[in-house]
Amino acid sequence: MRNYKLVVQYDGTRYNGWQSQENTSNTIQEKIENVLNKMTGKTVKIQGSGRTDAGVHAEAQIANVFMDTDMSTTEITSYLNSYLPEDIKVTEVTEASERFHSRLNAIGKVYLYKIDTNCKSDVFRRKYIYTLGKDLDLLAMKKAAELLCGTHDYKSFCSKASKKKSTLRTVTRIDIEKQGSEVWIYFEGSGFLHNMVRIMTGTLIEVGLGKRTPESMLDLLKEKDRKKSGETAPAQGLCLVRVLYH
Amino acid sequence: MRNYKLVVQYDGTRYNGWQSQENTSNTIQEKIENVLNKMTGKTVKIQGSGRTDAGVHAEAQIANVFMDTDMSTTEITSYLNSYLPEDIKVTEVTEASERFHSRLNAIGKVYLYKIDTNCKSDVFRRKYIYTLGKDLDLLAMKKAAELLCGTHDYKSFCSKASKKKSTLRTVTRIDIEKQGSEVWIYFEGSGFLHNMVRIMTGTLIEVGLGKRTPESMLDLLKEKDRKKSGETAPAQGLCLVRVLYH
Repeated sequence: MRNYKLVVQYDGTRYNGWQSQENTSNTIQEKIENVLNKMTGKTVKIQGSGRTDAGVHAEAQIANVFMDTDMSTTEITSYLNSYLPEDIKVTEVTEASERFHSRLNAIGKVYLYKIDTNCKSDVFRRKYIYTLGKDLDLLAMKKAAELLCGTHDYKSFCSKASKKKSTLRTVTRIDIEKQGSEVWIYFEGSGFLHNMVRIMTGTLIEVGLGKRTPESMLDLLKEKDRKKSGETAPAQGLCLVRVLYH
Repeated sequence: MRNYKLVVQYDGTRYNGWQSQENTSNTIQEKIENVLNKMTGKTVKIQGSGRTDAGVHAEAQIANVFMDTDMSTTEITSYLNSYLPEDIKVTEVTEASERFHSRLNAIGKVYLYKIDTNCKSDVFRRKYIYTLGKDLDLLAMKKAAELLCGTHDYKSFCSKASKKKSTLRTVTRIDIEKQGSEVWIYFEGSGFLHNMVRIMTGTLIEVGLGKRTPESMLDLLKEKDRKKSGETAPAQGLCLVRVLYH
């Protein structure tokens, strides 16, 4: 049995997120496992670096899988891509050390959220952006973003926080860039809670619209109450850009 | 009655091309006319700079339309974009001289054809590129492209050429660029015959695959026989980039 590392790009529009769970079918994980089952004649299970929500995209999700096969990594890549639908692409397959675990070894993640301030988005990119249609005060958003960075209890930015699991995380940077009519927000951190990037984005948008002050971010972090923070921004604007390892 | 000039961007995937004709519904022209009919309460007819085939995209198709309305050009733009589907966007509406005719005044057009030499395309751009999956000899393609430029009878590169209409055209440039795994071919000319860009692309691909020599382009131009040239490249790789006016 060898341990293979997969780099996976996907358009999440048609899927119920990355991870297969009970009662959740039509996931990206399931689509890849189905092809690998066919390829090896066995039931294989792939391990992703983390979940992505339904409708969220990935430029480079990382997964690993133990398999017994004589095929080269190039052959495995070709096989996967010829059987996977055109909205899921395996961009790289490499042999990893047997200790490599895509989730446990990940030291950080980079997400990108794209917002269009125009009322209607570029038709070629419309599925990968949130069409807000309103102007945003970037200076205020940048101030708020700075206050959200650091090591904090991010319970206010977590859907369905469990009482048992820690909601402490480290966000190393939140960079906000203007790209024509678009606003791009990069989030980098040790890990993100359920819906955390989308709730942070929704909250930052409210700052950008003048509905909240940048300073109010400090209160939000203190209050540890999901109801106090902003709306969860739509899934289609979000993309997992990179998973970081040592 | 004022004459308005529209700049239209569209993802052609779902449509039967730009132009409405007898027995052809679900065209981009029809979608825009339906919204303008609703807006003005009259039956308006828009004039495009030229047809684009079913499945072909446009970054900036140009059209003009005579209408009687009190709305400003900004209001017309907003109205159109709020009623048009998300794969058709009017990026600009301006008032034009009453003599402006989008087709008759056009002095040239720029098309871009995108080919992916990878077996599987980037998932976010997959609908706007032709996934060839084979390496291309760009040097040979560039030589062939140079021979195809100039003022010639392009009958070999025209589907359903009519005996009555001239197939003489001027192609001012065919630029071939490598963009990572993609090959982009820009075509600029006075005008293009039916399927001409796609047949030229298909022929250039055959040169790139070593199935034809660059020099054989001269014979093709002389022979004036569609059967001698290459396959018509798929519509989805083609985009009308710009329409040129004085």
